Amino acid sequence: MIKIGIIGSTGYAGHELVKRLVGHPEVEIIFLSSNSYENQGFSEVYPALKGVVDNVLIHSEKAIDKFDEIDVLFTALPHGLSFNYVRQAYEAGIKVIDLGADFRLNDKEIFEHWYKTKHLCENLLDSAVYGLPELWKDKIQSSQIVANPGCYTTASILALAPALKFGLVDPYSIVIDAKSGITGGGRKTDLSLMFAECNESVKAYGIASHRHTPEIEQELSKAYGERINVTFTPHLIPMQRGILATCYGTLPAFSTEEEIYSIYRAFYKNAPFVRIRQEYLETRFVKDTNFCDISIRIDIRTKRLIVTSSLDNLVKGAAGQAIQNMNILFGFDEKEGLM
Amino acid sequence: MIKIGIIGSTGYAGHELVKRLVGHPEVEIIFLSSNSYENQGFSEVYPALKGVVDNVLIHSEKAIDKFDEIDVLFTALPHGLSFNYVRQAYEAGIKVIDLGADFRLNDKEIFEHWYKTKHLCENLLDSAVYGLPELWKDKIQSSQIVANPGCYTTASILALAPALKFGLVDPYSIVIDAKSGITGGGRKTDLSLMFAECNESVKAYGIASHRHTPEIEQELSKAYGERINVTFTPHLIPMQRGILATCYGTLPAFSTEEEIYSIYRAFYKNAPFVRIRQEYLETRFVKDTNFCDISIRIDIRTKRLIVTSSLDNLVKGAAGQAIQNMNILFGFDEKEGLM
Amino acid sequence: MIKIGIIGSTGYAGHELVKRLVGHPEVEIIFLSSNSYENQGFSEVYPALKGVVDNVLIHSEKAIDKFDEIDVLFTALPHGLSFNYVRQAYEAGIKVIDLGADFRLNDKEIFEHWYKTKHLCENLLDSAVYGLPELWKDKIQSSQIVANPGCYTTASILALAPALKFGLVDPYSIVIDAKSGITGGGRKTDLSLMFAECNESVKAYGIASHRHTPEIEQELSKAYGERINVTFTPHLIPMQRGILATCYGTLPAFSTEEEIYSIYRAFYKNAPFVRIRQEYLETRFVKDTNFCDISIRIDIRTKRLIVTSSLDNLVKGAAGQAIQNMNILFGFDEKEGLM
Amino acid sequence: MIKIGIIGSTGYAGHELVKRLVGHPEVEIIFLSSNSYENQGFSEVYPALKGVVDNVLIHSEKAIDKFDEIDVLFTALPHGLSFNYVRQAYEAGIKVIDLGADFRLNDKEIFEHWYKTKHLCENLLDSAVYGLPELWKDKIQSSQIVANPGCYTTASILALAPALKFGLVDPYSIVIDAKSGITGGGRKTDLSLMFAECNESVKAYGIASHRHTPEIEQELSKAYGERINVTFTPHLIPMQRGILATCYGTLPAFSTEEEIYSIYRAFYKNAPFVRIRQEYLETRFVKDTNFCDISIRIDIRTKRLIVTSSLDNLVKGAAGQAIQNMNILFGFDEKEGLM
Repeated sequence: MIKIGIIGSTGYAGHELVKRLVGHPEVEIIFLSSNSYENQGFSEVYPALKGVVDNVLIHSEKAIDKFDEIDVLFTALPHGLSFNYVRQAYEAGIKVIDLGADFRLNDKEIFEHWYKTKHLCENLLDSAVYGLPELWKDKIQSSQIVANPGCYTTASILALAPALKFGLVDPYSIVIDAKSGITGGGRKTDLSLMFAECNESVKAYGIASHRHTPEIEQELSKAYGERINVTFTPHLIPMQRGILATCYGTLPAFSTEEEIYSIYRAFYKNAPFVRIRQEYLETRFVKDTNFCDISIRIDIRTKRLIVTSSLDNLVKGAAGQAIQNMNILFGFDEKEGLM
Repeated sequence: MIKIGIIGSTGYAGHELVKRLVGHPEVEIIFLSSNSYENQGFSEVYPALKGVVDNVLIHSEKAIDKFDEIDVLFTALPHGLSFNYVRQAYEAGIKVIDLGADFRLNDKEIFEHWYKTKHLCENLLDSAVYGLPELWKDKIQSSQIVANPGCYTTASILALAPALKFGLVDPYSIVIDAKSGITGGGRKTDLSLMFAECNESVKAYGIASHRHTPEIEQELSKAYGERINVTFTPHLIPMQRGILATCYGTLPAFSTEEEIYSIYRAFYKNAPFVRIRQEYLETRFVKDTNFCDISIRIDIRTKRLIVTSSLDNLVKGAAGQAIQNMNILFGFDEKEGLM
Repeated sequence: MIKIGIIGSTGYAGHELVKRLVGHPEVEIIFLSSNSYENQGFSEVYPALKGVVDNVLIHSEKAIDKFDEIDVLFTALPHGLSFNYVRQAYEAGIKVIDLGADFRLNDKEIFEHWYKTKHLCENLLDSAVYGLPELWKDKIQSSQIVANPGCYTTASILALAPALKFGLVDPYSIVIDAKSGITGGGRKTDLSLMFAECNESVKAYGIASHRHTPEIEQELSKAYGERINVTFTPHLIPMQRGILATCYGTLPAFSTEEEIYSIYRAFYKNAPFVRIRQEYLETRFVKDTNFCDISIRIDIRTKRLIVTSSLDNLVKGAAGQAIQNMNILFGFDEKEGLM
Repeated sequence: MIKIGIIGSTGYAGHELVKRLVGHPEVEIIFLSSNSYENQGFSEVYPALKGVVDNVLIHSEKAIDKFDEIDVLFTALPHGLSFNYVRQAYEAGIKVIDLGADFRLNDKEIFEHWYKTKHLCENLLDSAVYGLPELWKDKIQSSQIVANPGCYTTASILALAPALKFGLVDPYSIVIDAKSGITGGGRKTDLSLMFAECNESVKAYGIASHRHTPEIEQELSKAYGERINVTFTPHLIPMQRGILATCYGTLPAFSTEEEIYSIYRAFYKNAPFVRIRQEYLETRFVKDTNFCDISIRIDIRTKRLIVTSSLDNLVKGAAGQAIQNMNILFGFDEKEGLM
C-alpha cells in the first residue's frame, strides 16, 4: 500500500487519474489539489463521482506541506507549471510522475524553443526518464522522476519505433496524421471547444508546429540511432476521447505484411498493453482502456508502410500510462488497477 | 427552363440533388425514380420535405419510358448499375450526369480491376467527360455524358492538381489522408454504420485499397503529365457530412508558402467554388455548400508541402457538383441554384 | 427592395438571420453590427461565409447613426440590452423586429419578476406586438415593433393554442416537456456548453423556473380566455439545433384523434409553416427550415392529450420567424426567402 | 466463486454483462452463447475485448447441455425467446436472471396484450420475482427466477415509488417523459438506428403505447396500493447510452422540497445505488455506473412535483442491475463488481 497525492486533479487527465487510483488495491489517496476549486469537494467538480470520491480539494501550497506523507506525487498541470512541485518533491526524496510536458524533452533548448518558456529545472533533466514503459521499463524502475508522455506521442512512437529500429522505413519519409477527440484540448472554456462550434466538424490544426513533434522526434531518433525529423499533423474529431494515428513511411526494401507483423509482435511481446491486430482499428476498441492497438498495412503500389495505432488519450495517453508507470516504480504488477 | 429526371433519387446523393433542384430556377422535375420505394411519395421517404417535394416515386423501368420528356438525366446509383440507363439516355440523345462510378475511369481495365465488375459500356467511355469543372469545364460544355467525380476524389484532386502541374511536389511522394462523415457510407442498413457502432469513434478503412484511388491517380497523372500512383487512406468520422483531405508531398526545391499560395490562387482564379484560405480548415465551413476550401502549409523542417482541402461530400462531393455540371452543360450561370 | 440593419449579428440567431437575409430577393443589408467583433469582417467570425458575406462589422453606436438609411432594424441581443436601440429606432419611425426578450411580455411587472431587470421602455409595450404570425398576423401587419418569440415558446404555443382555444384540454393540467439542441444556450464560452462537458449526455435544467414560462403562459392564457399557469421543463440534447416539445393535458371529454386533428388542421389552414403530421416527429425533419411540425396522440387509458411539436430553434424559433415577420410587415409573400 | 452462463451474450446488454462479470471476483464464466455468432470468439464480435474475453461462442442448444455446470444462468434475449431456457434451467434447479421481458409482468393476460405473444411459462410466473432490488431485495434473496427490470422502468419506478407510497402525488396525474440513448434500441440493423438517420435529431416514439408502460404501472400500483395507469412517453436522444426520466405529478397537499427530499432519503437509505441529489441531473453523471440518480423539484405555481431520475440503460437499466441481483441471490456484497 502506497500513499499518493495529486496536484492538478481536476483537469481531464487528473480526473481520470483519480477515478482509476481510487479503485487501485495498492493505493491510498492522501490529497487531491486544485487551485481553481480549493475547498470544494472533488465530486462537486465531477458530480459523477458523488459518493465515490468526495475528498475536499486543497490548494497546491498546502499540498506541498503534505509531501512528507506520500510516497509518490502526480502532477497534472499545463506545461511550465510543474517545475516547483517536481523539484520540491525530488528534494524530499519522493517519486514524481509528471503528466505535463516539463520533463519530457531531454534537451532544455528544444523545450524552450517549442514551448516558449524558460526551463526552471535543467539540473533535474538527467534524473528524469521518459515514461513510455514499452521502451524504457528498466530505466523507469530505478528513476525518481518519470515524465509521462503525451497522448499523440505515445500513439506515434509505439506505431513507429519498431519500424525505425529495424530499418523497415526510410527515416526521412515519416508522415504522422493523427486524429484526436475533443478532451485532448483540455478542460477550459474556449470558444473553439464549445459543442456548438466543434460538433459535426473535423479540423486540422498545429500543422508543422504542434508541440508534440519534438517529443516524437526525440524518441524515434533514439529508436533509429540518428537524429530525424518527422511531419506531424493533428486533427480534432467530434468525439470525447480517443486517438488514431495513421503513420506513413517509405519501404526501403521489399517486405511483406507478415514479416513486419512478426517484427512488431516480437518487439512488443512483453508489453501487456500493446495489441498487434490484423483488422482496421477503431478508437472505440480502446476506449476507457490502457491498450494501444497497432495495425499494419503495406501499399505495394507505392512501396509505403502504413501503420495505424489507437489509444484513449486520457488513459494510455495520460492517466493510465501514469498508473502503469507507478506500478513499475513500486514493483506492482504492471496491469494492476488497469484492466 | 429544362426538364430533368433522376434515377436513384432516394439515396443520400439523390436526396440532396432533389432538395437543391427543386429550388433551381431553370429546372422542372419530370420524374424521380426509386425501385425500393416505388409508388411512395418522396416525402414519405424523406419526411423533412413534406409539402415541399411530394412527387410519387416511379420504378426505373417506367422512368425509361419518360426519357423523351426530359433534357437531362441524373443517375445516382451504386457502381455497376448505371450502364443500361446511361446507354439508353445517350442513344435517345439526352444528356446524362452520372453520380456513380461507372464512367469516371477512362480505362475499362482499371475499372474492372478495382470494381470487380464487368464494364458494359466500353464504347461510351470516349463520350464521357470527367466532370470536375475546375479542370475540365470546356470539355464538359460539349459532352453528352458527364461522369460526376467521387467525394474523396474531388477533395484530393483539387488539393493537389496545381502542385503536380507546376512541379511543386515530388510526384512519387504523395500521401492523402482523408476523413469523411458517415453519410459517405451511403443509405443502407449496415451494422458498422449504426449510431451505436460508429458514434464516438474514428476508424481507418480501405487502406491501400479504396476504389477512389485510381480515380485520383487518373486525374493527378493528367495534371503531372505522367502516370503516377498515390497512397490514399480514408477514415470515417462520427459526423453526418464533410470531408477533410490532408495531402502530403515532398518539396523538390525551396518554396515559400506565399509562392505556392500565388500559384494556387492563379490556378483557381476562375473557379467560383474553390476558396483558397490562409486559416486552418474545418469541415463546418463548407457544410451544406458547394465550396471546396483549400489551405496550404510548408513543413520547413522536413521539406514537405501539406495541402488541406475540405468539402461537403454530398454537395461539392456529389449533388452540388452534379448541378454545377448541369449549369455548365446548359449554359446557365455556374453558380445557379448553388448559393 | 427594403434596407435592413442588424444589431447583434454575430450570435447564433444573428448569424442565421444574416445567412438567410443575404439571399432574400427583397432585402439589401445596410449594416451588421457587433460590439465584440467591431471592424472585423463578418466572415472572419463565421468563416463558412467567406466570399458570401464579407461585410465589415460596425459598433452598435455607429449603427444608430445609420438608422436613417434603413427600413427595418433587427436586434438580436441578450435580454435587457435592446431597449435603447428599439426606442431610438421607434422614434426615428423605423420598424423594429427584436429577437430578444425585452418586448415579448406585455406586462412590465412580469418581465421584471422573471428577468430580474428593470424594463426601460414601458411606454412602448403597447406598441409592440407578439410576433407569432400563426396567431397575430393581422396585428403584425400594422405594428412598428415586433417582439419575435422565443424558441421554446414558439414550439409550445403552436402545440397547445388550438387545444386551449377549443376546450380540448383541462387548462390546469398542462405539462410541457421540451428538448433543445445546444445552440439554444447561445454563443458564449461557458464550461457547461463545452463539447467535452455536454456531448453524450442529456440534462434537465431550469425546472419550474425557466424564463420562457411566462411567455408561454401569456399566449396560452389569451388562447384560453383566462389566466393559466403551466409546468414547463427544458432539457439540453447533444445536437446542434432543434426543439421537440412534448405537451400533455387532460381531456375533459371524450375525443378522438381524428376530431382533434380536424380542429388543428382548420386552425392552421392558412399557416404555411405549420405542418400537421400523422407520424411521430423527429427534429431532423425541420432542421434548417422554418417549419413547425405538430403531431397528435391520445392516451386513451389515462384520458390525456399528447401533442408534440418540433422546430429549428434558430429558424422558426428565431431568425426564420423574424424574416417571416418582416415579410408580413412589408407585404411580401410570407414564405419569401424561407423555402 | 460461482459458475455462470449467458444465453444471448452478444447484444448490448449481454456484452455489458460479459464485460463486468469477467472482472467480478466471485464469478467464473462457463459459457457464452450466441446463435448469430456461433463458433466465433467473443472478441471477434466485440474487438475491444481482444485479449480480455476471447471465449468461443456456443449455440444456445449446446448451452443447455452445460446447465449442470453452472450455478446461475443469465438470459439476455428479445421478448418471447427466453421461455424455454428459463424453464429448463428452473427444472434443473439453477437460478436464472432473465434480462428480457418474459417474466416481468405478473399477469399473463397483460403480457400477451402488450407483447402480442403467447406466454409459454404461465406456471412459472409465481416463482419469478421482479428484480428491482431497491423494492424487493428480500424476495429476490429467496427466488429462483429473477425478472430483471427494463431500463425505462427502473428509472421511472425508482423516481416515483416513494411519492406514490407516501401519497405525495395524485396517482391519476402521473406523466413520465423519458429520454434514452440509442443503444436502447438494441444491436440490430434498422434504418432508423443508422448514424446518418438518428444523429443530430431527437424523436418521440411509442407514445401511449410503449411496452414498458404496463411494467411501470404494475410496480407503481403496488407502491400506491391500488391499480393505476400512467402516461409514458419515450424519446430517442443522439448519444450512446443513458436515460433521463422527467416525472410529473400533482401535489394533493402543500409540501416543501425539503419534506419530499427527507422522505426519499429515508426510503432509499439502504439502497447503495440510489443517489438523491440536489442539483439538476445529467446522464453523464451515471454513465458506465450502476447508480440511479434522483432529483426533486416542486413547481409551486402549478402545485406539481417534478422528479427526475437518470441511469445508464445498459448498467442499472440492464446488466449492472442483473449483477446486483446475482450478488443478492448468492449473498455477496450487493456492490461487488459494480464500483
